[in-house]
Amino acid sequence: MQIAMIEDKILPFDEVEKPYLDRGLYFGDGVYEVLRSYNGRIFALHEHLERFSRSLSEIKINGVDIDSIRSKVEKAFESAQIPDAKIYFHITRGCAAREHTWDKNIKPSFFLTITELPDAAPTKKDGICVSSHPDWRWKRCDIKSLNLLANVLARQDAAEKGCDEAILVGEDGFITEGAASAFFAIFKDTLQTNTLKANVLPSITRKFVLRAAEQTDLQVKEKPLTPKQVIRADELFIGVTTKDIVPVVKFDGRVIGAGRPGKYTKELTEKFRKFTL
Amino acid sequence: MQIAMIEDKILPFDEVEKPYLDRGLYFGDGVYEVLRSYNGRIFALHEHLERFSRSLSEIKINGVDIDSIRSKVEKAFESAQIPDAKIYFHITRGCAAREHTWDKNIKPSFFLTITELPDAAPTKKDGICVSSHPDWRWKRCDIKSLNLLANVLARQDAAEKGCDEAILVGEDGFITEGAASAFFAIFKDTLQTNTLKANVLPSITRKFVLRAAEQTDLQVKEKPLTPKQVIRADELFIGVTTKDIVPVVKFDGRVIGAGRPGKYTKELTEKFRKFTL
Repeated sequence: MQIAMIEDKILPFDEVEKPYLDRGLYFGDGVYEVLRSYNGRIFALHEHLERFSRSLSEIKINGVDIDSIRSKVEKAFESAQIPDAKIYFHITRGCAAREHTWDKNIKPSFFLTITELPDAAPTKKDGICVSSHPDWRWKRCDIKSLNLLANVLARQDAAEKGCDEAILVGEDGFITEGAASAFFAIFKDTLQTNTLKANVLPSITRKFVLRAAEQTDLQVKEKPLTPKQVIRADELFIGVTTKDIVPVVKFDGRVIGAGRPGKYTKELTEKFRKFTL
Repeated sequence: MQIAMIEDKILPFDEVEKPYLDRGLYFGDGVYEVLRSYNGRIFALHEHLERFSRSLSEIKINGVDIDSIRSKVEKAFESAQIPDAKIYFHITRGCAAREHTWDKNIKPSFFLTITELPDAAPTKKDGICVSSHPDWRWKRCDIKSLNLLANVLARQDAAEKGCDEAILVGEDGFITEGAASAFFAIFKDTLQTNTLKANVLPSITRKFVLRAAEQTDLQVKEKPLTPKQVIRADELFIGVTTKDIVPVVKFDGRVIGAGRPGKYTKELTEKFRKFTL
C-alpha cells in the first residue's frame, strides 16, 4: 500500500492532506509578494501585482487572473482592519504527487497572511548594522520565488553577528543586493545602487527611492559596488517594503559616516513617506 | 485581527493549520532524500542517511537523531510492503510565522512517502533522450535542499522537447550534472563524469557506478565535460537512485554512438545490479 508518514504517524497516501503535497513544499515551486499598508491604505498594490504577474509567467504558472488576486488582497485587507499591516501572499503551482514535471491541469494554490507590522521608528532612528555574505542564490533572482534558502542562511548568519541584514556579494566581488532588501550607498551627492541588469530582484522600494531621489540634489548612479567601496561611503541604507528606507550605520563592523543616519537618507525617507500618504 | 486566506477562505491567523506555516513552503528551508528498494530491500540506506545528516548540518537544522530517522524509514517501509518502492522523505526547519531568521527552539517537521516505482525496464532497454539547459541553481548544490525550482524548470523544458532529463550547463560552458541525476560519458575505454569539487550533489548512484567501473576495463576520469564533447561520446548515461543506470541515446537531438545503449553501459548496469541483491 502506498503510504505517507507525518512525524510518527503512518497513513495511506490517499489520505494525506493537500498542503503536504504542495509543490511549494517539495520544490519551492511558487512565487510570492510582500506588501504593506500605511494608515489603512495598501501601498503600491499595482506595482506588486505587476511584478507578481511577471514572476508567475516566468515560471509558467499560467491561468491566474491577476484581477482576482487583487480582489482577494483587498477583501482580506478590508477584513483584517489593521492600519499598518504586512500583507504576504504566494501562489504555488499546486498539489500533486512528487514529480519534477507538472500536469498542465494542475490547479495553483493561493495563500495569504495579514499581520501587524512592528513599529519601525526605533530602527529608522538608530539605523542598523549589516554584514556581508556570499551570494549563494540561483541565477533567476529577477523572479520572486519561494526558493529562499540562500537568503535564510545569509540572514541567519547576519543575526548571529548581531546584524539586521545580510548584504550579498557575488563571486565577482560585487554586491548584488540585501538578502531581503535593496542596497544603496551615498558618496557626496551621488546615490549609487546596483543595476537591475544584474541578478537582482526588481525592487519596488528601489523604484520609489529613485523617484524620491529626483526631488533632491542627488545624482543617481546604477552600478554595482564592492564591500571595500561601501565602507568609505558617506551614507548607506537598505530599501525594504515593510520599513521602506532603513539607515545602515555599520557594515561588517566598520562605522559608516558619522555612525548615525545621514542627511540624504533622512531627506529620502521624508520624500518617500509622501508617496505613501 | 491577524488573518490568513487559503484560496477564498478567510480565517484567523491562529487557526491556520501547521503545514501552511512550514518553512519548507515559505523558504524551501529543508533537505530531503530519495531512496529505493530492490525486491524488498532498501538500497544504500546508510549512504543516504549519511548524506542527509550532512545536508541537515550544512543548513543548521540541529538536534535531529539520524538513528530515529533510520527507524522511521524502516518502520514505514515494513508497513508499506512494496518490494520495489520509492522512498522519499524530507525534514524542514519547522513551522512558524514567516521570518527569515529562525527561533532556536523551533521543532523540525518530518514527512515521508513510499510509493510504487514504475518499471524502468523499457527505459533502460531503449535509452532516453536528454536536452541541455542553463544551470540556474544556487551555489550550494552539495546540499540536497528543497530549493528545486531551477531543476523543475529545466526538467519541464526537457519534457516539452520530448526528453526525459535536462543536463545542466554552467555559465563556464561545462556540464554540472542532470536536473535530477548524475551524468556520465564514455569515450573509448574511459568513463568520464564531473568532479565532486564542482557545484554538484554528491550522488550516491555515482559512487556505486564508479565502484562498478572498477570491475570493468574502464578508466575513470573525473573532469567536467562540455555539450560539444559529449555529443562525440561513444556512450552516455545518467545515474539516478530510482532507476540506477539509464542509457542516453540522444543529446540535444544528436544521436549518441549507435543510438542504442552501449556495451559498457550494459556492463556497468549488470555490475551495479549485483550491489543491489
